[in-house]
Amino acid sequence: MDLKFLHELIIPAHSKIVMLIMDGLGGLPLEPGGKTELETAVTPNLDALAALSALGLTVPVGPGITVESGPGHLGIFGYDPLQYRIGRGVLEAVGLDLDLGPSDVAVRGNYCSVDATGAVVDRRAGRIPNDMSKELSKLLSTRVEDIEIQVETVREHRLAIVLRGPGLSADISDSDPLKNGYRPLPLRALNPDAEKMARVVNQFVDRSRQAIEAYTPKPPANMLLLRGFDSYPHFPAFPELFGVRAAAIAVYPTYRGIAKLVGMQVLPVEGSKAADEFTVLEKNWNDFDFFYLHIKETDLAGEDGDFARKVDIIEEVDTLMPRLMALNPDVIIVSGDHSTPAALKGHSWHPVPTLLYGRYVRADGIAGFGERACGRGSLGILPAKDIMPLALANALRLAKFSA
Amino acid sequence: MDLKFLHELIIPAHSKIVMLIMDGLGGLPLEPGGKTELETAVTPNLDALAALSALGLTVPVGPGITVESGPGHLGIFGYDPLQYRIGRGVLEAVGLDLDLGPSDVAVRGNYCSVDATGAVVDRRAGRIPNDMSKELSKLLSTRVEDIEIQVETVREHRLAIVLRGPGLSADISDSDPLKNGYRPLPLRALNPDAEKMARVVNQFVDRSRQAIEAYTPKPPANMLLLRGFDSYPHFPAFPELFGVRAAAIAVYPTYRGIAKLVGMQVLPVEGSKAADEFTVLEKNWNDFDFFYLHIKETDLAGEDGDFARKVDIIEEVDTLMPRLMALNPDVIIVSGDHSTPAALKGHSWHPVPTLLYGRYVRADGIAGFGERACGRGSLGILPAKDIMPLALANALRLAKFSA
Repeated sequence: MDLKFLHELIIPAHSKIVMLIMDGLGGLPLEPGGKTELETAVTPNLDALAALSALGLTVPVGPGITVESGPGHLGIFGYDPLQYRIGRGVLEAVGLDLDLGPSDVAVRGNYCSVDATGAVVDRRAGRIPNDMSKELSKLLSTRVEDIEIQVETVREHRLAIVLRGPGLSADISDSDPLKNGYRPLPLRALNPDAEKMARVVNQFVDRSRQAIEAYTPKPPANMLLLRGFDSYPHFPAFPELFGVRAAAIAVYPTYRGIAKLVGMQVLPVEGSKAADEFTVLEKNWNDFDFFYLHIKETDLAGEDGDFARKVDIIEEVDTLMPRLMALNPDVIIVSGDHSTPAALKGHSWHPVPTLLYGRYVRADGIAGFGERACGRGSLGILPAKDIMPLALANALRLAKFSA
Repeated sequence: MDLKFLHELIIPAHSKIVMLIMDGLGGLPLEPGGKTELETAVTPNLDALAALSALGLTVPVGPGITVESGPGHLGIFGYDPLQYRIGRGVLEAVGLDLDLGPSDVAVRGNYCSVDATGAVVDRRAGRIPNDMSKELSKLLSTRVEDIEIQVETVREHRLAIVLRGPGLSADISDSDPLKNGYRPLPLRALNPDAEKMARVVNQFVDRSRQAIEAYTPKPPANMLLLRGFDSYPHFPAFPELFGVRAAAIAVYPTYRGIAKLVGMQVLPVEGSKAADEFTVLEKNWNDFDFFYLHIKETDLAGEDGDFARKVDIIEEVDTLMPRLMALNPDVIIVSGDHSTPAALKGHSWHPVPTLLYGRYVRADGIAGFGERACGRGSLGILPAKDIMPLALANALRLAKFSA
């Protein structure tokens, strides 16, 4: 089902939809036969909601496929993550809250070490410390011809670089040879419109090399590699596509960035706790039809392999559920963008427990929210991108398809 | 799986398949935690059959998508409703049992009111009464050049118009401006082959306007709008496609029409009760391999919001099941074309409870036929169009796929 087809069926309504995303929600037992993080957590409010909901397991992209946050979120937002892609440079840039305009180009960079012949000897420059990386990045931000170039450290050697100005193009080759022992490649225009871009970027790389050389103390990094030039993705904007005034409530920049990329209005959050996000939800309740509320800590605990902390955070969110229910939303989705089992200390391919609540949902009557409960639910195992059409239908925002 | 692939695997057999469609079968509880219409109905015969069947929930077009009867039926007949579409004019025409040939063109019309300047002031002509609408339609049916034009009232202002004769084309623009305050548009040929069509239809519209003007008493309608020209859809015919002699048993014209469109033989039904349809099934048992038997009243009760009546009709059908079982069909499908919950007083997006019975079905052993029972069934949640291949396989009518 493509988005154009879905868009044509959209009708206006006054209903409100809340999509509560606990990042990396899905988990695994620590021992065979044990319970997952979500199954271990004591969640009376989510369990009661589950009893009135349809349950299922969502698959972000495909069976066995582990996703990063970008495609994970595009899926739950209703976009096919294999069709709609966000370049890594763009994701890094929006993740840093850099101001990326429609004609700007973003690219991912990293500091590296080259030897006297110019060949790369360490593509990560010994994972240069954050502080030094940030100092270098400030030094390297510059202007070439009429193009402003902003260099920002993501972490250690990893950089997000944004180019702003007239006549840019993302159609140029990378400089990263992707292997040690080779010299960085000159950047080449891949079509005639990109000649200026190639000239500017090659000049920027030369100037960067000289600037790093002049810098003391000598850093482990003495060169810069670039890959993945990309411009702002032109996605059908979420609010127009689905006919909703859409707000995003998230503390972490990456998620604020992804929401902004699809056209949601990103609301400011004072504080960084889950409770602070629920306060923003309450305050803005009357002004939007769709709320995306993102909890990051579940994922961080999973990444750290901290099973108990992930359980605690889920329980904390559960205690906040009465505040959400008090707003009386027409449709509630509780899910994650992917699984992050503590047992794996990282993202995983496991389908994500998902709950769909609403007055017209055909409830399964399963009074528990967990991986196995969701595996028995009537939503079955479904692509994450199918959640949005289901939410819209249950919010009575889709017309009948006649022919 | 496309139909061509499926068709190539068809092998002859003597087995018989019965597809019993209760229109709008799927429902919703009236209260949270309650039972649906089907779950409320006392259906000992369907429950016993369910115990020997595989159960599942069928999705007519896609998650969250509510369908009209046209796409709903194409799905259960094995056609992808997004690929095979029936124009609204054609559906109205076949719904009225008008004789629509392969080279005829059908269009949807409506009576409207225009002011002295010719601008439309009411696109529905105040929902003109049926009797007056029918009188006007008789008056307007005419012949222009060598083209016969049949005008039939569907209901109130709504018309089905069929054009018959040589050199017709559906490639002409609409006259309906779709908004009040605008004059009806002249009909234009969209390609050179449609010049004659445009000339004939413009002449028909002129003549209609004059005829209505001459009519007394002055009707609220004084003009005619046309939209959605379409010719008979050229679907792969069901009997050849699936290698079955296929019969349709339905009382309502729309369903007789859809069955006819896909090439089934539509059997006459004396009386209008479900029992009368079962009698037709019995009488014609030896002459066909596939029977589509359609019960309309479940949908009507749902549309009326009459939960109890929908329950009653399901129970009535249940009492007839022994007559079906006595014929000893090889494969039985019991399903619906979509859901029509009384709670929503209309069609809905909810998956449809479906039962597949046959000697070689891997039965789930769930002795109940209802939405939640089907949600636990081994067919899972499946596209409606997958039911036909499953029925054919269980009727041993599909060869092995080797390469």
